[in-house]
Amino acid sequence: MPQKSDINRQLLLANRPEAKLSPEHFQLVETPIPSPKQGEILTRTLYLSLDAANRAWIQGRTYRENMELEKVMRGGTISEVVESKVPGFAPGDLIFADTGWQDYTILTPDAAKKMPRIDPLSHLISVYSLTGLTAYFGVVEVCKPKPGQTFVISAAAGATAQVAGQIAKLMGARVVGIVGSDEKAEMIKRDFGYDEAINYKSGPIKQTLKQACPEGIDLYFDNVGGEILEAVILRMNIHGRIACCGAISQYDGQPPAHGPRGVPGFLITKRITMQGFLVYDWDQAAHEKALKQLQDWVQSGKIKIHEDIMDGLENAPKGLIGLLAGNNVGKRMIKVA
Amino acid sequence: MPQKSDINRQLLLANRPEAKLSPEHFQLVETPIPSPKQGEILTRTLYLSLDAANRAWIQGRTYRENMELEKVMRGGTISEVVESKVPGFAPGDLIFADTGWQDYTILTPDAAKKMPRIDPLSHLISVYSLTGLTAYFGVVEVCKPKPGQTFVISAAAGATAQVAGQIAKLMGARVVGIVGSDEKAEMIKRDFGYDEAINYKSGPIKQTLKQACPEGIDLYFDNVGGEILEAVILRMNIHGRIACCGAISQYDGQPPAHGPRGVPGFLITKRITMQGFLVYDWDQAAHEKALKQLQDWVQSGKIKIHEDIMDGLENAPKGLIGLLAGNNVGKRMIKVA
Repeated sequence: MPQKSDINRQLLLANRPEAKLSPEHFQLVETPIPSPKQGEILTRTLYLSLDAANRAWIQGRTYRENMELEKVMRGGTISEVVESKVPGFAPGDLIFADTGWQDYTILTPDAAKKMPRIDPLSHLISVYSLTGLTAYFGVVEVCKPKPGQTFVISAAAGATAQVAGQIAKLMGARVVGIVGSDEKAEMIKRDFGYDEAINYKSGPIKQTLKQACPEGIDLYFDNVGGEILEAVILRMNIHGRIACCGAISQYDGQPPAHGPRGVPGFLITKRITMQGFLVYDWDQAAHEKALKQLQDWVQSGKIKIHEDIMDGLENAPKGLIGLLAGNNVGKRMIKVA
Repeated sequence: MPQKSDINRQLLLANRPEAKLSPEHFQLVETPIPSPKQGEILTRTLYLSLDAANRAWIQGRTYRENMELEKVMRGGTISEVVESKVPGFAPGDLIFADTGWQDYTILTPDAAKKMPRIDPLSHLISVYSLTGLTAYFGVVEVCKPKPGQTFVISAAAGATAQVAGQIAKLMGARVVGIVGSDEKAEMIKRDFGYDEAINYKSGPIKQTLKQACPEGIDLYFDNVGGEILEAVILRMNIHGRIACCGAISQYDGQPPAHGPRGVPGFLITKRITMQGFLVYDWDQAAHEKALKQLQDWVQSGKIKIHEDIMDGLENAPKGLIGLLAGNNVGKRMIKVA
């Protein structure tokens, strides 16, 4: 169990990027460790989740308010209770919360979700929280794959996709993953059992998609937006469905002037449905049910989880910048303590 | 009842427009009237429906094959059987079929749908066939408006929208129509009972939409695509739905380089669903049920139908070009005989 240290390192959003995110947009400061008042807990960050959505929060208002300057960068963490002035929370308890990029945080209990102590703890970040739930609902509730359908997923070696693609495979779909390197293409076939893998940098995506999906695309789990989404729309089958989960190609840099070609023309011609979704659209009971299913799959070895763990809070900016460039394989996180 | 004449006037697609459609893309030819063989009927065109989709058929492959050059321009018509060599079809019977831009056609019975003889006959084009059914399914099955929801519709004085907007109003929605002139804006409020009307040419559409929809937009029945769709997406409420029915702004001229901004970013942030649909997605039984409902509404005066009837087959090119420019009010058709 980590011990309380003397200082609280915090990474602040120092200024807003006009184009690509870089280390100078953050500032590391050291502050005293706060003390909880009655009704509060003090938590220490163990694992910090890095997510492409972090970049979108910096840029503008999304499903949450825009990140303010000079404030601690937001981020989901697995943290441990160090001191508690709340009944029902004791030192050593684990929680999932948006405690941000810092060592210590003061929370009220409504902002903290208790988590079980499992081995490895990192699975609480990589699969048994927002990442795994997003994959689960996006596949099971939005895409709804049927056996034999062609299911395409982008950023396929990434955190959400590794879970989503394997769920689609378990549901009987023919799964085609789009990635950014030959190594990742090999890996998703070997480790996740994908039927096909496309390195989108290896040739024109329209052609490689056509080769990999000779019978067209029934379902697309979109993590990237942009030109890959455009190419997929052109190959969608009639009554196809697109689950819009993320648009990582659009987060880091100038916002795009326009969206993908074929919207809405191809949506009409082929009666395609595009649906944006967030994990918050399902309630607590649905979350519990999904988590139980994910546990069964992971513990029985039906779903394999890759984790990309970096050490040290100070590396969070570098870790996020690398994630946006596609350097990670599986779920990237920072081991903070 | 129209009598058989001596010649069959046909309008052929003479060449494919590179930009805007104009009269020289069509050629009028005169041919002999064909004779039906065993198993065929000869029909005479009474009313020819003009639809924005006609323009899309010329441009490329849509939900049907691309129109071939030197062939009779396709188009839905109400026609009358003149001569029959099929049991069950007799001279004087009315049918709806894609008999195209010509006076006479030979058909096999599977390509003809029998229609009742009603008064006025033109209602078979304006409401009791594809136009009315498209409006019905787009509202009732795709948008599913609930009382008090804000329902926005574009090309709101057009053929499909006049039916769709009034159905949404009957279902209790607050209906806001987008049109291209102050006259149309007045008309849709006065004749169709819309709550608000926006002339998109009167000012920046983002601002006029904001004024007309202070509580955001829950449902959008999109007939136009392009910049209006883009502006609507920006004002959609969480869990909003967009029924993609047409994209008339994109049909006539150079195809657009890109699609609307905010796709998929805003779809995710606001969990919006965009769904392309065609009337063919529902079966015959659903069509019959919808037609009965439409009849009840029209006959009881709950839905008002505007028709924009031009005389003479030779005016079909001019009629379609004007339709694409937004010159029509209500359903535009050609009285051929």
